[in-house]
Amino acid sequence: MVRNYKYHCNNCSKLYSAEEIESGLIYLCPNCGESKKNTPLKGILTIEYDYEQLTNIYSKDELLSFAAGQIWNYPDLWPIDFNKIDKNDLAKLSLPSNQLLKYEIDGREIYFQDETRNPTYSYKDRASILVALKAKELGINEIAAASTGNAGSSLAGICARLGLTAHIFVPKNIPEAKRIQIQSYGANIYMVDGDYDQAFDLCLEISQENNWYNRNTAYNPLTIEGKKSAAYDIFINTKGELPDYIFVPVGDGVIISGLYKGFVELQKLGLIDKLPRLIAVQAEGSSAVVDFISSDRFEYKPAHTIADSISAGAPRNLYMAAKAVKESNGFGIKVSDDEILSSQKELAHRTGLLVEPSCASTFAGYQKVKDKIEKDEKVMLLMTGSGLKDFEALKVWNEKPVVKSSVEWKSLLVR
Amino acid sequence: MVRNYKYHCNNCSKLYSAEEIESGLIYLCPNCGESKKNTPLKGILTIEYDYEQLTNIYSKDELLSFAAGQIWNYPDLWPIDFNKIDKNDLAKLSLPSNQLLKYEIDGREIYFQDETRNPTYSYKDRASILVALKAKELGINEIAAASTGNAGSSLAGICARLGLTAHIFVPKNIPEAKRIQIQSYGANIYMVDGDYDQAFDLCLEISQENNWYNRNTAYNPLTIEGKKSAAYDIFINTKGELPDYIFVPVGDGVIISGLYKGFVELQKLGLIDKLPRLIAVQAEGSSAVVDFISSDRFEYKPAHTIADSISAGAPRNLYMAAKAVKESNGFGIKVSDDEILSSQKELAHRTGLLVEPSCASTFAGYQKVKDKIEKDEKVMLLMTGSGLKDFEALKVWNEKPVVKSSVEWKSLLVR
Repeated sequence: MVRNYKYHCNNCSKLYSAEEIESGLIYLCPNCGESKKNTPLKGILTIEYDYEQLTNIYSKDELLSFAAGQIWNYPDLWPIDFNKIDKNDLAKLSLPSNQLLKYEIDGREIYFQDETRNPTYSYKDRASILVALKAKELGINEIAAASTGNAGSSLAGICARLGLTAHIFVPKNIPEAKRIQIQSYGANIYMVDGDYDQAFDLCLEISQENNWYNRNTAYNPLTIEGKKSAAYDIFINTKGELPDYIFVPVGDGVIISGLYKGFVELQKLGLIDKLPRLIAVQAEGSSAVVDFISSDRFEYKPAHTIADSISAGAPRNLYMAAKAVKESNGFGIKVSDDEILSSQKELAHRTGLLVEPSCASTFAGYQKVKDKIEKDEKVMLLMTGSGLKDFEALKVWNEKPVVKSSVEWKSLLVR
Repeated sequence: MVRNYKYHCNNCSKLYSAEEIESGLIYLCPNCGESKKNTPLKGILTIEYDYEQLTNIYSKDELLSFAAGQIWNYPDLWPIDFNKIDKNDLAKLSLPSNQLLKYEIDGREIYFQDETRNPTYSYKDRASILVALKAKELGINEIAAASTGNAGSSLAGICARLGLTAHIFVPKNIPEAKRIQIQSYGANIYMVDGDYDQAFDLCLEISQENNWYNRNTAYNPLTIEGKKSAAYDIFINTKGELPDYIFVPVGDGVIISGLYKGFVELQKLGLIDKLPRLIAVQAEGSSAVVDFISSDRFEYKPAHTIADSISAGAPRNLYMAAKAVKESNGFGIKVSDDEILSSQKELAHRTGLLVEPSCASTFAGYQKVKDKIEKDEKVMLLMTGSGLKDFEALKVWNEKPVVKSSVEWKSLLVR
């Protein structure tokens, strides 16, 4: 296969051939790349296609005719040689095609992109799928990742689907629920006496020594590339009528960076006129991206929030995430843990969408700015993980009800 | 709308018009119906269409052209006037169309019907959806159900999607996880100082007094009718090449009864030649249906199994379930709780399907009889609920791993 893409450094702008990067199992820019403790990654590579050549490869109608959730329908926009992948393996990786939901809430139609029914119930599957497909293509059977939760269980679940081995490095303070999800899928789990940074570094070192493919988030360019797929699915689901605003929960910054890359591609391909405004929503106790957007400065602070999926003191993809917000004419919002939990409850009650605290933050963020959004502007909230993934959070706002006898209930309830 | 169906009593065979049953909010047969403590229901009504008239209404090709998970594509096979339902409400109720998965396991291709990504992550949504649509059609905004778990959270979640009010009656010993799922969707929950039977009776009484629509399982004919929809989805997903065997987890017996009804309809409509053999899998500690199949006798015994979703001492739909097995040339199997848990683990590790203990029982059952199944016969396992719905079961087989320093892990892992 002739590769129609190159790797581009987001820091020094150097370009590399696909062969050089992939056959050498290189991840960060060989010229300037750097992974340092408590610091965003430097020299992240992204995949750049020859967009001029691709402009006419898919018409708008053709792209819209494909089922959402199956990126292999338009193979030229992905760095994968799909001919090398078993068709049944692809079937195991398809996402539901009915991810777009629409609810009227307080007089406005709100769109929800529902990622809670992906194979392991989170958006992370988009990255894991692309990484696993690349491993398959390269003939590598073992994939490693450092994780505090959903990325690890996602990689574990996707590997189980494809018969690959997953190695997950976790900090010792990982939430129990996330740890059990990782283990349930049969991954090898390595609990490190240290924090996420130490797990991250250890994972890099051991992957390299053992020639395991590495899925560390933001570090492997295919994590960003995988997360761009939601932009195409949103394009397909909305029949090309993109939202004006998309509220995105932000931790490490990879989802919003991937989404932005996808929308920019759709624009380069002449399929959309303008980008949706990407709104980065963070917890008050983990707000490095939102702070960087306003101050252009990063300072490491340990993160504390109930929304563990967006807890990141040093967002690995900080710079790209901030760029995604600024260049899409978006903005950042911080919400408190209390606001997150009450939004989680309100969302489930009003829409039947039971989501993790991380993505409930988008509803909290929307509530804060909704009066500034014109009534005819289209708003979408990104729902990135199922509420069942974090049972402890649900316990907080669902107290055990009182027990009464049948006779007592009758006297209370019969009108 | 002229109703093209009647209600038929499965005990005395009397027929009733749709108007009589529905406008009177009647559920069991007015002639012989009976709901008694610790006893299967008598006089369950099912919906019978004029199949001769329907024979030519959908060709095989036409039915196969529809997306799975959207029953409103073929409205004549459902007792709902879809013209009275808002299109956007239907969109909120669609199931994923990619529910068919295929894995090679020990030299045989096994098909999985994956219901774990339904709106509330269980098969029960099929019943709740039809009940909620009927309530909408009848202009009733409040629906009640007795439940020990998934039926209640399903009704709660589906009601939240449609802006209806759910009233759920639960026994005081309901598993915490299931109770919290019910509450999370904003249902009114009534915890009864008694067992499931008392909650069931109380729910019937209060529903009647308050004119709430009742979704008690098997009691409301639309629960069975809703659960038939998987037969059509399996027909669509397999392109009409149905499995020879379908392993079904059985508790109250409604899923297997509904599935059977759907396959019989497909046969009456001339769309399939023979029925799949339905294999009823039960836990050893809750085996009333399997026992009845072999002995033709029912005796109430309290149920005890880790698979709470199939725990039923007095299966409400016992007689129809046993008939479904016998008339499809199937059989029953009992499996132990240990076998269920080890199957849950093996399934997750080998397929990436993280399912509840109840549906893991089908894999345990399959393992017991696989040597008697010809190699060229097609086997399907029905996966009825997500493993995330019962976190306690996952804890049993995922012990906390050891913590080691980075240095220790390096010395162990670097080859």
